Amino acid sequence: MTTNYRRRLLLPPFFYFATSTRSFSAPLKFQFRPQFSWTNNNSSTQRVGQFSNTNSGILSNCHRRFTTSISESSNDINNMSDDDKTSLPSIESSAVVGKTKWLELRTMTYKDQEGKERQWDYATRTTKQSVDKADAVIIIPLLQKKGTAGEEDLILDTLLVEQFRPPVRQPTLEFPAGLIDKDETPESAALRELKEETGYVGSTATVMPTTVSRIVCMSPGLADETVQVVLVHVDLDHPDNVNPQAQPDAGEHITVRRVSLKDGFQTMLDEESSPMAIQGLYLFAMGLEIGKKINKMKK
Amino acid sequence: MTTNYRRRLLLPPFFYFATSTRSFSAPLKFQFRPQFSWTNNNSSTQRVGQFSNTNSGILSNCHRRFTTSISESSNDINNMSDDDKTSLPSIESSAVVGKTKWLELRTMTYKDQEGKERQWDYATRTTKQSVDKADAVIIIPLLQKKGTAGEEDLILDTLLVEQFRPPVRQPTLEFPAGLIDKDETPESAALRELKEETGYVGSTATVMPTTVSRIVCMSPGLADETVQVVLVHVDLDHPDNVNPQAQPDAGEHITVRRVSLKDGFQTMLDEESSPMAIQGLYLFAMGLEIGKKINKMKK
Repeated sequence: MTTNYRRRLLLPPFFYFATSTRSFSAPLKFQFRPQFSWTNNNSSTQRVGQFSNTNSGILSNCHRRFTTSISESSNDINNMSDDDKTSLPSIESSAVVGKTKWLELRTMTYKDQEGKERQWDYATRTTKQSVDKADAVIIIPLLQKKGTAGEEDLILDTLLVEQFRPPVRQPTLEFPAGLIDKDETPESAALRELKEETGYVGSTATVMPTTVSRIVCMSPGLADETVQVVLVHVDLDHPDNVNPQAQPDAGEHITVRRVSLKDGFQTMLDEESSPMAIQGLYLFAMGLEIGKKINKMKK
Repeated sequence: MTTNYRRRLLLPPFFYFATSTRSFSAPLKFQFRPQFSWTNNNSSTQRVGQFSNTNSGILSNCHRRFTTSISESSNDINNMSDDDKTSLPSIESSAVVGKTKWLELRTMTYKDQEGKERQWDYATRTTKQSVDKADAVIIIPLLQKKGTAGEEDLILDTLLVEQFRPPVRQPTLEFPAGLIDKDETPESAALRELKEETGYVGSTATVMPTTVSRIVCMSPGLADETVQVVLVHVDLDHPDNVNPQAQPDAGEHITVRRVSLKDGFQTMLDEESSPMAIQGLYLFAMGLEIGKKINKMKK
């Protein structure tokens, strides 16, 4: 029965992940993010990679196929004295230095862990809705189709977009992405942008439980830009995906690349003749190759 | 003999990649990046994922263990008319709107593919040395140690750094990273930053041929920031790695996390109790999980 269910959704076994909750030990309780459940750690050494592992019990059994664990490290590292830990970074102010229609350059004044006043320059989008909401979504399309010889023949491709990016003065290769409109969820923004940029119709409902990531930052030393990563299932047997037509905005010139995830993905990005990749795409490809080899190691 | 060589370097089989050269079909020849060997494509349909595959012949046979190929797509997508392809984007000027010690806000004026004059706001580091050089390195440490029962027991951990990032007003979890100094190679910058931030001594010489990535961009809609990704081998049996001591700069407060790549990496990043991840780290973790499952699909 499990197999039939999987085949109907065109999902290979790897979507049925296990999840668990873990307490992540950390030295500081940051006062300006009260939702953080961090604890003070007053021991003089900070153990790296120390986790407690408890199953959350909130997911149905079909998601428990794989169990997860994180190794406890044998190394102790401590970069802070006990004095450091008694004071917490706090933000004093943020002043606009320069402003255009789309971006602001700001200087933030904050007190560091030692209570010393410091300044940090950063860029922020004028469209930013809130510090607690992601600016944009990054879409990871997984194109799948039943093979003629059953599951083993499943296609597993992804879609990349190539477009001229003025700041880097050249075309880039990226996962499809776009700003989240007001009153839009990350899921609906992802499906809308995927359709506009590539023409493909996707769904997020059947890809569980890692469909939408937490909020992640793009380049936190330079900007406050944040995104959510959305894994989108694209069924190649869907009638709208037989001859997909992109709907770019006026002035948008996007070329869609369909590439296999099974072989040669990172090598392709490293080709001199490929457009410049965005860092997240490159690291995805590197993770993919290492993940494939980890399984070979285990044999 | 091959096996002995591998064991001596503590490298699992997956470092012995194959490489090949491929011509990447693209519609435009961008005039401001003359090193691009792109060709004009005058056919009315742009085939996505179309590659020719030729072995480069420049690597020794020990790197040819795996062959790579990219699937030829069955879909045709064309977002541009033939008229679009006759004109190329060109940059007219870039004006400073605001400036601090570390960052500039600029507005670029350029002509798009249709010859229409457009403007684009972006941020740039005042430390940027050249548009052809990466600002920084991102370090992917691979911690390895011989297991008691041979290769199957190999540890495969990585190192993450946790630090307060003023722009996002909270601590983040990232791969170690740092700016490349003048007259420094990406490799030497990576080894220096790894030692400073984590205390671990690494090497790049034995991790081939994907040690250093091409230049990739961080957030090309917002900034011209570029980086190179450096894969660093960390031998846990090296005497300096038994009790590593970080050497942070004054005012740097970094906590090092050692985490296993074998299981649960993405799940850990999605925990509410984990610090905010940087997008590249999250996509690496997602790629890792998908890569592990791709091999299961193939069985």
